[in-house]
Amino acid sequence: MGCDMRLYPECVPCMLKQALEMAKLVTHDRKVLERVLRAGLGILQSERWNVPQPIVAFKLFRKVSELIGVEDPYREIKRQSNRFVMNLYDELEGIIESSKDKLMTAIKLSIAGNIIDYGTGRPFDVDETINRVLRTDFTINHYKLLREDIEKAETIVIFGDNAGEAVFDKLLIEQLGDKKITYFVRAHPFINDVTVIDAEEISLEDIAEIKEVRFGDWDRGMSIDEAVRFAKKSDLIISKGQGNFELLSGYDAKIYFLFIVKCDVIARAVNAPIGSQILLLNQKYR
Amino acid sequence: MGCDMRLYPECVPCMLKQALEMAKLVTHDRKVLERVLRAGLGILQSERWNVPQPIVAFKLFRKVSELIGVEDPYREIKRQSNRFVMNLYDELEGIIESSKDKLMTAIKLSIAGNIIDYGTGRPFDVDETINRVLRTDFTINHYKLLREDIEKAETIVIFGDNAGEAVFDKLLIEQLGDKKITYFVRAHPFINDVTVIDAEEISLEDIAEIKEVRFGDWDRGMSIDEAVRFAKKSDLIISKGQGNFELLSGYDAKIYFLFIVKCDVIARAVNAPIGSQILLLNQKYR
Repeated sequence: MGCDMRLYPECVPCMLKQALEMAKLVTHDRKVLERVLRAGLGILQSERWNVPQPIVAFKLFRKVSELIGVEDPYREIKRQSNRFVMNLYDELEGIIESSKDKLMTAIKLSIAGNIIDYGTGRPFDVDETINRVLRTDFTINHYKLLREDIEKAETIVIFGDNAGEAVFDKLLIEQLGDKKITYFVRAHPFINDVTVIDAEEISLEDIAEIKEVRFGDWDRGMSIDEAVRFAKKSDLIISKGQGNFELLSGYDAKIYFLFIVKCDVIARAVNAPIGSQILLLNQKYR
Repeated sequence: MGCDMRLYPECVPCMLKQALEMAKLVTHDRKVLERVLRAGLGILQSERWNVPQPIVAFKLFRKVSELIGVEDPYREIKRQSNRFVMNLYDELEGIIESSKDKLMTAIKLSIAGNIIDYGTGRPFDVDETINRVLRTDFTINHYKLLREDIEKAETIVIFGDNAGEAVFDKLLIEQLGDKKITYFVRAHPFINDVTVIDAEEISLEDIAEIKEVRFGDWDRGMSIDEAVRFAKKSDLIISKGQGNFELLSGYDAKIYFLFIVKCDVIARAVNAPIGSQILLLNQKYR
């Protein structure tokens, strides 16, 4: 049993806003934007709302892609995010290697990387975020349990979140020791979430096996059910970001959720204010 | 000719968010909130979008009222706003009377009052706002024209905006000299906009004739067309707030618009950043 993470009422206007922002990356033609909105209103109305928000958002965003005629409007933003964080790689590695608890620092940086999320429409500052995250304690902190589980694990599955952020995950993977790592990316474009193209751009395949998960109908990748079944065969599951928390926290699976709280809905769900750093193991496995 | 203030794409998710916030003033029952959202999605989809945003919002908010079973969910908030500013009345009057340019100070305070708007969901601080507004220059400033027109006018029509803010307008009216003032309130509840009940709560009828304007079908009040026709017979028209700017700026009428920019859509329309104080006369009348 996990949190009740089916779509909240507040997610409905928020998803519509995101759909509009997605379209505006490609066009400012009022007619196209209105077509996107009307289609979005229709999809939101016809969908059932007893599923996690990303499941509905996936259908909505696919329709937007179709209407604006661009499969992956965040492609260039993702490329820039990847490049931006790759340029920081040695510096970030230095921060980890010179720290007292390298694993803790790597986890904290991996959470800091979660701020790189164009999906929420909030501005961010990477340097400032890194410093703040390193100075600040977790609001929910199951680090000790995670550390023990990492030590015992031979196989680890990580559910990746955003492009750019995935570079921080690469740094974390390097601190996990000699394990077999599987890293899930999205099988399809979904805002700025990490896809196999991003994994290639940051050479993630050098240290992890890349697998794809899909949120709905798509011509490749595992369904979420399949991905969770696969992940449960491993010794340890780590989930990055709010979206994966929404998708995975309802499953009966021992999962460590690492993310920064970015909206009121999630803040209420985990009872921690916006901006909190969360390292959360599902209740029944503590 | 005025600004193109028909509903912008960005208004669509924003109106839906406001509809949800309105419902949440009365209930947190998920079923009711979902019913409100689904009805809202339907209304937004079926309406034409070539009209000002408040026209569509009116229909949306009426439906919300019906579904939550409360005609005016902002009633208590409006009452508190009125009382709050009435308690500041003598202090505010003192600020005006001791200032060098009393009319200017009264106008500035009347614009400061425009920050009292629960509709946008932003927090506000009245004292801080008053001080900031008094210190800050108008971003768009047709004060000299307005001052001249006030001196010449015998009859003045004011379109009121929010409850609470209307108390500031009362202070302004006192500085206008011996004129015949007509003050338009909403004929129906519309978020925290001023209605005839608010006008009574602050005894506005002592210094102005109160008239009602409606945004759509309603059993009393003038339509916007009728209100503008009426207002054009007076010597001077003053419009308070963003909502009235959206409703009235398309009319061929000499109107002074007084407001604080509160959202990106209006910021773009008047080419001034959020938070700007605007004292704007329609272009063709300058």
